[in-house]
Amino acid sequence: MAYSNRYNNNNSQFYAPSAPSFPGEQSPYTSASAAPNYHAHHSQSYPHGTTTPSSSNSAYGSYGQQYPSSSSSSEFPAGTHPDVIRSFQMVDRDRSGFIDENELQQALSSTYNRFSLRTIRLLIFLFKNPNAPLTIGPKEFAALWTCLGQWQRYDKDRSGKIDSFELRDALYGIGYTIPASILQLLVSKYDDGSGRRVELNFDSFVECGLIVKGLTDKFKEKDRRYTGSATLSYDTFMSMVIPFLVSYN
Amino acid sequence: MAYSNRYNNNNSQFYAPSAPSFPGEQSPYTSASAAPNYHAHHSQSYPHGTTTPSSSNSAYGSYGQQYPSSSSSSEFPAGTHPDVIRSFQMVDRDRSGFIDENELQQALSSTYNRFSLRTIRLLIFLFKNPNAPLTIGPKEFAALWTCLGQWQRYDKDRSGKIDSFELRDALYGIGYTIPASILQLLVSKYDDGSGRRVELNFDSFVECGLIVKGLTDKFKEKDRRYTGSATLSYDTFMSMVIPFLVSYN
Repeated sequence: MAYSNRYNNNNSQFYAPSAPSFPGEQSPYTSASAAPNYHAHHSQSYPHGTTTPSSSNSAYGSYGQQYPSSSSSSEFPAGTHPDVIRSFQMVDRDRSGFIDENELQQALSSTYNRFSLRTIRLLIFLFKNPNAPLTIGPKEFAALWTCLGQWQRYDKDRSGKIDSFELRDALYGIGYTIPASILQLLVSKYDDGSGRRVELNFDSFVECGLIVKGLTDKFKEKDRRYTGSATLSYDTFMSMVIPFLVSYN
Repeated sequence: MAYSNRYNNNNSQFYAPSAPSFPGEQSPYTSASAAPNYHAHHSQSYPHGTTTPSSSNSAYGSYGQQYPSSSSSSEFPAGTHPDVIRSFQMVDRDRSGFIDENELQQALSSTYNRFSLRTIRLLIFLFKNPNAPLTIGPKEFAALWTCLGQWQRYDKDRSGKIDSFELRDALYGIGYTIPASILQLLVSKYDDGSGRRVELNFDSFVECGLIVKGLTDKFKEKDRRYTGSATLSYDTFMSMVIPFLVSYN
């Protein structure tokens, strides 16, 4: 298989991750070891060099578990930290049990730097119940909060300076092995033309991560056998991509 | 062919265009008649219900002629309006023959409302010589200027208020028939949440048009037989899409 060969022959473009172990983190890759086995991880990542959908599925599933796509979302999961519940309730003034984009922006700003509405909209798009309007309930809010906490660990000194290598490590930490060329193409979009190496602030870092995760998941839905390629109609292609295009001036 | 059937059975989702005729415009669809024949146009548009690549090619070619992809771009084409040359030279202070994104933004602002750097970057990405850096030469500047002039005609009263139907008409005018559902998905990204019908300003209108044109052209490159679908590897998919994702906070 062409894709498999290409992948196996170019291991040098992938890097051993420097992801720290996260106490209590749900990912099977980091909980077992502070320095997870690269190849074990690699063989489960996407696109991958094997043709064993079941092992690939488990790799995705580890992240997917954090994102409930259905069932009741009107209550916080057991064990949710009181600060998370307080942040949600503080902005859900009408006690509707759902918050919109402005309220989410406000709820997160008590703990994180203020996110752009662009990133907020991506967060809602990727975390909300697919059948619900553009709002977030308690269950999704808790999942989203956990995810952001994981991402924040990659900005260790809270300097707000994150490069493409750290982005790669962060994605690796949640189960995605993305070719360096793809990440560099993405990060180059944030080049300010100064000639300096591109560094992302936390907002852009999360935005990049959500874009890669979201597009990869969308592609994977169309590549059920995990071959590394998919046949898409024009309408499907456009419908997959447009939600990730930014707007909101 | 499934795609062809779907398309033919759903003509009601496409609309007869209300595009005006543009004196001197290069498009074969509008130069022949003030109210171009819908079906003649339709059969040449993309995705289409026929399997005759040659007729499709001519439809694309009519627009592609305005975008030189190679050859010398160091001189303005014969007949370029002096105002266009003046706008370029005014910002190309070092007489290098190329202007960057900030200079392009400045050059266009003498005639158009100020474009966001997001739209400016899309313009450069789609108009520049593929082998050149992120700069625009005289030839590309003249093509870009002509294109913007065509787009401006759709904002007839210069109100800066353009809806998805006018966007559809504008794309139709340059040879692209896009399903209404795709355009509404795109325009909905500019919804400010007020509940009012979404209207685009000229900057967003051009941005939307460039996104549709750019993504459609990219997809078409992978669908050489114009079947309406294409098989993409994961890397190809990501590389096609990422340039259209916006950044630049």
